[in-house]
Formats: sequence, C-alpha cells, structure tokens
Amino acid sequence: MTTKKITFSSQTVSYYFDSSLDQLGQLTAPDNTFIITDENIYAKHARRFKNWRTIVLKAGEEFKVQATVDAIVEELIEAGADRKTFLVGVGGGVVTDITGYVASIYMRGIQVGFVPTTILAMVDASIGGKNGIDVGIYKNMVGLIRQPSFLLYDYSLLKSLPKEEWINGFAEIIKHACIKDAAMFGLLEQHKLSAFQKDKDLLNQLIQRNALLKSKVVQQDEFEQGDRKLLNFGHTLGHAIENSYELSHGQAVALGMVVAAALSAEYRKFKDVARVVDLIEKYGLPTFAAFDAAKAMQVMQSDKKRVKDVIHYVLLDKPGKGVVVPLSVQQIEPIVTRLSQPSNL
Amino acid sequence: MTTKKITFSSQTVSYYFDSSLDQLGQLTAPDNTFIITDENIYAKHARRFKNWRTIVLKAGEEFKVQATVDAIVEELIEAGADRKTFLVGVGGGVVTDITGYVASIYMRGIQVGFVPTTILAMVDASIGGKNGIDVGIYKNMVGLIRQPSFLLYDYSLLKSLPKEEWINGFAEIIKHACIKDAAMFGLLEQHKLSAFQKDKDLLNQLIQRNALLKSKVVQQDEFEQGDRKLLNFGHTLGHAIENSYELSHGQAVALGMVVAAALSAEYRKFKDVARVVDLIEKYGLPTFAAFDAAKAMQVMQSDKKRVKDVIHYVLLDKPGKGVVVPLSVQQIEPIVTRLSQPSNL
Ligand SMILES: NC(=O)c1ccc[n+]([C@@H]2O[C@H](COP(=O)([O-])OP(=O)(O)OC[C@H]3O[C@@H](n4cnc5c(N)ncnc54)[C@H](O)[C@@H]3O)[C@@H](O)[C@H]2O)c1
Ligand SMILES: NC(=O)c1ccc[n+]([C@@H]2O[C@H](COP(=O)([O-])OP(=O)(O)OC[C@H]3O[C@@H](n4cnc5c(N)ncnc54)[C@H](O)[C@@H]3O)[C@@H](O)[C@H]2O)c1
Ligand SMILES: [Zn+2]
Ligand SMILES: [Zn+2]
Repeated sequence: MTTKKITFSSQTVSYYFDSSLDQLGQLTAPDNTFIITDENIYAKHARRFKNWRTIVLKAGEEFKVQATVDAIVEELIEAGADRKTFLVGVGGGVVTDITGYVASIYMRGIQVGFVPTTILAMVDASIGGKNGIDVGIYKNMVGLIRQPSFLLYDYSLLKSLPKEEWINGFAEIIKHACIKDAAMFGLLEQHKLSAFQKDKDLLNQLIQRNALLKSKVVQQDEFEQGDRKLLNFGHTLGHAIENSYELSHGQAVALGMVVAAALSAEYRKFKDVARVVDLIEKYGLPTFAAFDAAKAMQVMQSDKKRVKDVIHYVLLDKPGKGVVVPLSVQQIEPIVTRLSQPSNL
Repeated sequence: MTTKKITFSSQTVSYYFDSSLDQLGQLTAPDNTFIITDENIYAKHARRFKNWRTIVLKAGEEFKVQATVDAIVEELIEAGADRKTFLVGVGGGVVTDITGYVASIYMRGIQVGFVPTTILAMVDASIGGKNGIDVGIYKNMVGLIRQPSFLLYDYSLLKSLPKEEWINGFAEIIKHACIKDAAMFGLLEQHKLSAFQKDKDLLNQLIQRNALLKSKVVQQDEFEQGDRKLLNFGHTLGHAIENSYELSHGQAVALGMVVAAALSAEYRKFKDVARVVDLIEKYGLPTFAAFDAAKAMQVMQSDKKRVKDVIHYVLLDKPGKGVVVPLSVQQIEPIVTRLSQPSNL
C-alpha cells in the first residue's frame, strides 16, 4: 500500500493506493458508517460488504437523480444517521458523485470517503471534489465542490469490471497523457490494455500516476478558473455528440480528442495527430464516426461554460502539453465538419 | 444607508442597512438575476418587483422542502439560468433558507444575495450562511453553510409584516441581548415594541446591532465548534416543545429562555430571572405554559446535537453574558418539570 496526502483549500485528502476494501475499518468505524454502492458491484462482491451497513442503489446514470438522493436521505434519517456519521461510496462515478453530494448536504455536511471501482472513477470521477446529480436531460446540473476525506484503491474489485468499462476509463487516461504527461503517453504506446489488466504493479503505477495528475491539476485550480480547464480535452465535442449517438462517454471523448488533435494541427502546429489517433485506437476506442456537424456545433455553442461567441478549446502543442485556446466558431466549424464524414480522414 | 462588510472564511458579505429594494439594481443586473420571494410578500409589494424576473413561492414552512427546490431548479433551467446568474431571496427565513440552498447547489454554486423582510430574517435567518430545507418532520435536515454576497435591508417592507411576526423576531433579539449585549438588554427594557415599529431610526439601530452581533458570533465560529452555540439560548427546550404545542418559534424560544434563566439561577447564581421574564412578557411573548416535561426531556435527549448523556445548555451568568454549560439530564429535569406547571412559577 502507498499512502499520499493532498491538501485542497479546505480539506486534506488521503489516498491509499494498492489497498483493500478489507482495510476500510481502519479508516472509519462500522457502527458509525454507511456504505453506498450499486447493485452490480454488490452482486459481485457481497462478501466484502458484510459487517457494514450498506445502501444498495440501482445501477446506472439514470439513477443519478434527486429521487435517489431523497431515498438515501430518508434511509439515513430512519437509521438515525447524525453529524458524526461517515458515508463511504463504493462504486463508479455515479456512486461517488451521488454519495459525495448526499454527504455535502445531509445535516449541512458529514464526512465522506470513496472506494472507486471503475477505472474512470479511480483516475477521474472520485477525484477533485465535484459531485452532483442530473436534472432531466441536463448532466450534473445540481451539485457542489467538496473534497472527500479519503480515497481507497482496491484493484481486486476491478476483476468484475466489464471490458467496455475498462476502455471507457482509458479514454480519460489517454486524455491525461495528452495534456500533461509525455512519459505516460510513451508508456501507453509501449503497452496495451490487457497488460494493465493482468499486471497489478503496472496498473498500480498507471492509476497512481493518473490520480495524482488529476489531483494536482485540481489542487492548483480548485474552483476551475484556469488549468483545470485542460481536463476538458476531448470533452467539448465529446459532450456535444455523446447523447445524440448512444456513445459511451469514453467513445465520445475519444472522438472529441481526435477533433481536438486536428484543431491543434491547424492552429498550434501540432505534429502528432497520427500518434494520438493510433493510441486511441490501440485502447479499443473509436477515432472517427459520422455525426451531424451542424448540430454538434449548435450544442457546443449552448454549453453552460461558454462565454460569448468564443469557445475555450483545449488543444495540444505536443503530446503531454495541453493548452487552452480561445477559438471562434468560424475557426472550429470547418474542421468539425470535415471530421464528421469518416471518408475525409 | 450604512454599509458594512464582514469577511467569513470564504466570502465577504456586504450589509446595506436602511437601504431600499429599489437600489437592488446597483448590486446585480436585472437581466442576470432571478428574485425568489413568497406570495404574501409579492401580494403586498408587487410594484417593487417590476423589472425583475421573479419566482413566487407558496408561503410557509411547509413549502421549505425538496419539492420546492425541484420546482425552482426546473424554472431556472427553463429560463436559461447559468453560472453567472444571481439569485436574490426577498423574504422571511423560509425564502432566504431555500434561496441560499438553491444557489449553493445550482451548477455547483451561483451567487446569492438576500433582502430579509421579517424581523427574524433581518436579525437571524439571513445571517450566518446556514441554509437548507426540512425533510418530513425533521427541520433543516438537508442544507449547507455558504455565505451570501450581500444583505440589503429595506425597512419599508416591514409595513405589511403581521404583528405576530414582529413578536416572533423579537424573541431572537431578546436572545441576543441576553447572551451578548447588556446595553441592548437595557435598550429593550427602556422601549416597547410599538416604539420600534414607529421610529425607523430606533429600529435601524436595533436591527443593525443585532445583525452585526450575530454576524460576529458566526464569523468567530463559522462551523459551529464553540461560541456559535450561544445562539441556541432558549432553543434547547424551545425546539423540544415547538412542534407539540402549535407554538410559534418565537413563543417556544421565549418559554425556553425562561427555563434557561431558571437553570442559570440554579447552576450559575444568575440573579436576574425576573428581568428576563419581564422583558419577554413586555414584547408580547409567553413566559410560562403547561407542557409535558417528560416528553420534552425525551426530545431534548434525542437532539442531533447531543453528545452522550450531557446536554450543552446555554445559560446566563448575567444579562448580556451567556455561557455554554454541560448539564446532565438529572440536573435539567427537575427545573423543567417545575416550570412545566405554570402554578409553580
Ligand atoms: N465528479 C467528477 O469530477 C466526475 C468526473 C468524471 C465523471 N463523473 C461522473 O462519473 C459517472 C461515470 O462514472 P463510471 O463510468 O464509473 O459509471 P458508473 O458508476 O455508472 O459505472 C459503470 C458501470 O460499471 C458498473 N460497475 C462499477 N464498478 C464495477 C465493478 N468493479 N465490477 C462490475 N461492475 C462495476 C456499474 O454498476 C455501472 O453499470 C458519470 O455520472 C459522470 O458524470 C464525475
Ligand atoms: N438559516 C438560519 O440560520 C436560520 C435561523 C433562524 C431561522 N431560520 C429559518 O427561518 C424560518 C423562519 O423565518 P421567518 O419567521 O421569517 O418565516 P417566514 O419566511 O415563513 O415568514 C413568516 C410569515 O411572514 C410572511 N412575511 C414575510 N415577510 C413579510 C412582509 N414583509 N410582509 C408581510 N408578510 C411577510 C411570510 O409570507 C410568512 O407567512 C424557518 O424556516 C427557520 O428554520 C433559519
Ligand atoms: Zn470524461
Ligand atoms: Zn430561533
């Protein structure tokens, strides 16, 4: 086990890498704690939850909504949870987002820790303190920023993770490599997914590197004024097409990274579009797909983060060096249009 | 107009005393702002809201619930409210609590200001950053602590405030005088309610003094570890009997202050029970009432703030000097029992 601590503006977060859910009792007392997880994780790992009071949610993004928050709050009240109660979210990003949110608002805030069980949650969703829920078609419309007390990593839980969820998570890992870590970009080029699935030390190295990378970006910019924007690499277009085409988040981000790489070639003299495309492909993610470019442009322009007619797009100067560049709609549109027709590769 | 600024841990709050709702446009732009108010206030002051997009809530504590939050969030989404949107709560504590809460969670937090329209909101509810909603029978079970950007005081709005709401608010004013401000205790003894209702300068002096008193207590102890507990004077027993007897909050607190004064005489050699009782009576609040002492004791012991069998009770050493004293149930019970039978005064 490796322990790290990172101090955010109002909370120090302890990271326990290569640890085990069985160690949770050393961080919080069972009689004082509620675990929140989802039915898929619980079904595969029921044994690991014995001795713990556990609230089991239905799985999936469609349950990341206020009705689930209401149900958890009621269950906590009925069970007599008070200000000293500790919540632990054991799950993917849906579980950690909702657990973090409930912990933020229950009795004006109780302690919370996370045990991420997907690659995406390990390297992204459980880190940085953002939490929240969806409202209708609007993702993460309600929520807040508040850091957990700890993150506990138990890679044995990943044994049951479906392959497509591994791939999903690797989209964010590739994103991290692109914007901040040339050495990791090389590491990813050198290995392939199955190596990380089989070799726990290699996986631990990768997860830790990604978790700390995101943590440091957030730490330097907790309230999202500057550098944190780099984490949107691939997400500007990704979000714009994710819902319309039944793409997974990872797939949408992958397509978004390809477009961002092409924009980088155009406006930042970025030379390595092919390496980015190859890497994305290597990890089982799509690099081109036909989509409605006009509609995507429209969604991008209505994004809640947009200021005026400029879109702050994350581009690359080289692998490992992301940069936020204000681009006009006129600058973006031709490239998006070209890449929305796969034949135009 | 008098302007004050108080800096809390993560936000500076501007106080505009003796100002006017008509000045709101100097603090936030109408095209960027939603006012949230309730139907009673809107009915009496509709003219003051023109030019502002206004969400009008049903009035009353029973609407300080998640369903109202859901409705406001939906209305904000539909109207295209984004991260730059400003919310302004114009109302009593119900409106300011709910507006502060929505502003805290909408898109992970947007700016908020308050225009308190009850005495209670002016001197208590709108100050200190606590916000939230009720869940079933549990008051303020969900919420958080977050300071507003400004508080704007417009005493002309009080013209329509029913007398019983004036009286309600004076319970908190008397509380403040008891725990922290001997001079104000004297001022209250010297005048009577109608004087404050008629004389705007006298009222302004009183409101300002109370608002700053509460602000400073909170500022020194924002997350409720120590001194902020003094603000619970009268509330330990008050909360325990408020629901059971259809008492207003002010009435329940008044009865609670009498009991606390009696406990102070017993355990702190407090000499001025009679002055406290007289002052409470002078402002139209009850000083004695028959209640079920055993049940009240039970509720007090299940309070979410209680640690083990000790109740941290706010007592007085003298008028203007509150103190938090750990009392055992055995120490409290006989006095509560005695005062629950009015003949035993
Ligand atoms: N808070 C943030 O900063 C942040 C960042 C990125 C994403 N997110 C959020 O994260 C969510 C996506 O996270 P996710 O991809 O982890 O989704 P998820 O939680 O829905 O998990 C994906 C699927 O895998 C299952 N699962 C999880 N762990 C498993 C395991 N060990 N074995 C078997 N099955 C398992 C889940 O039941 C689910 O069906 C989205 O709601 C997104 O908004 C939040
Ligand atoms: N956040 C805090 O720190 C804090 C502290 C104390 C109380 N509170 C909360 O405050 C609430 C009680 O506040 P309140 O007593 O102001 O209640 P309220 O908001 O319900 O107002 C009382 C009544 O007066 C009406 N009203 C308000 N202003 C008026 C005006 N100018 N003219 C005519 N009618 C008017 C309202 O419509 C309502 O019917 C409770 O929910 C309580 O939990 C919060
Ligand atoms: Zn993502
Ligand atoms: Zn009160």
